[in-house]
Amino acid sequence: MWVVCADLEGVFVPEVWVNVAKKTGIDELKLTTRDIKDYDELMRYRLQILDKHNLKIQDIQEVISTLRPLDGAYEFSKWLREVTRFTIVSDTFVEFAQPLMAQLDFPFLLCHSLVIDADGRVVDYKLRQSDPKRKTVEAFKSLDYQVIAFGDSYNDISMLKAADRGILFCPPDNVVADYPEFPVARNLAELKSMLW
Amino acid sequence: MWVVCADLEGVFVPEVWVNVAKKTGIDELKLTTRDIKDYDELMRYRLQILDKHNLKIQDIQEVISTLRPLDGAYEFSKWLREVTRFTIVSDTFVEFAQPLMAQLDFPFLLCHSLVIDADGRVVDYKLRQSDPKRKTVEAFKSLDYQVIAFGDSYNDISMLKAADRGILFCPPDNVVADYPEFPVARNLAELKSMLW
Repeated sequence: MWVVCADLEGVFVPEVWVNVAKKTGIDELKLTTRDIKDYDELMRYRLQILDKHNLKIQDIQEVISTLRPLDGAYEFSKWLREVTRFTIVSDTFVEFAQPLMAQLDFPFLLCHSLVIDADGRVVDYKLRQSDPKRKTVEAFKSLDYQVIAFGDSYNDISMLKAADRGILFCPPDNVVADYPEFPVARNLAELKSMLW
Repeated sequence: MWVVCADLEGVFVPEVWVNVAKKTGIDELKLTTRDIKDYDELMRYRLQILDKHNLKIQDIQEVISTLRPLDGAYEFSKWLREVTRFTIVSDTFVEFAQPLMAQLDFPFLLCHSLVIDADGRVVDYKLRQSDPKRKTVEAFKSLDYQVIAFGDSYNDISMLKAADRGILFCPPDNVVADYPEFPVARNLAELKSMLW
C-alpha cells in the first residue's frame, strides 16, 4: 500500500509569490531565497511589502484565484486520488493555497499557515514544524505505508530521500546536477509511467 | 492547525458487510464480531462464504456501488475538505470502500486491503498494522497538528482517546455507557457545531 507525497508549486500549480508579484505589479514581491538567503528575513520583508501596499488576505486570495493549475494537473490529481492515497506536502501557506486547492477539488494538503488579524492583515506566518516534508514521509511510514515522493526543488530533497522512491519532476538543471541519484520526470505522462 | 480523523461506516456510509449480506441474500455474511469474537476467524469465514457463492471482487464492488452515502454525508465530507485537513480512518478494506469513495469524490482514506488473485477471487486480507486508528492520530500529532476524531463504536475508542478531542457520533447505548467521558453528537448538525 502506497502513499504519494507530492510538492505543490511547480508541479500542480504555478509559483505563488512570483505570480502575485506579476499580477499586482509589485516588483518587490519577486524576491526569492536566491535574493534574500534567510527565509525568515525574506518572509518578514514580504509581509512588510503587503502592508505597505495595504494588501489584505482577501486581496491576495483574489489575485491567487486568477491563477490556474498547471496543464494536466487537475486530471493528474484526480487520478491519483482515485488510485492511491495522495497528499500534497508544501511549504506554502494554507490561506494562499486555498483558491488553487478549490480548483483541484481540495486534495489532502499539509503545509504552513499565516497569522491573520480581524481586518484580514497578514501579521505573521507560522511554519508547522522544521523539515516538514521529511517528517510527513516518516509519519506515513509509521503507518506501514510505502511512500513515493516527487517534487522539483531543493526543499523537496529531504522528502525524496526519506521516501521509498523519490522522483524529481521538471527540476532545474542545478538540482539534477546536485542530486543525480534521483530519476527525473520531464512531464506528467513520464511521471505517471514511473509511479508503479 | 487541525486534522480531522473520522470513522467511515456508520458515519459517512452504511455498514458494508451487513448490506452486502442483505443485497446478496447471503445470510451467513450477516455474522459480525458479536457472533464470532475472533476477527481473523470471522474474516476467514467470510472469505470462505464469498468463495462458496463464487463472488469475485467485481461482484462485491457491484453490490457495494448500489449503496449510497448516509444522508448529508456527501455535503459534510465536502465541507470538511474545504475547511480543514480531513482523513477517513477505517477498518474496512480499500477495495470495498472504493465504490463508496467514488460517491464522496475520493476523500483521503487510510484503511486495510485485500489480497485478490488474477481472477478477482479474494484470497486473503491484510491489516495494515495493529491499532491503526490510534497510530494515525499519533502520526498527525508528530506533524504538529492537533487532532479531532469522531466515530461510532468500540474500534474508534483508541483513536478518540489519542486525539486532542474525541467525539462519539450516533453511538449505540452500550458504547456511551462504557465511555461516558466522550461528548456525543446525534446528527451531523450537532457534530458540526461541536467541531470548533
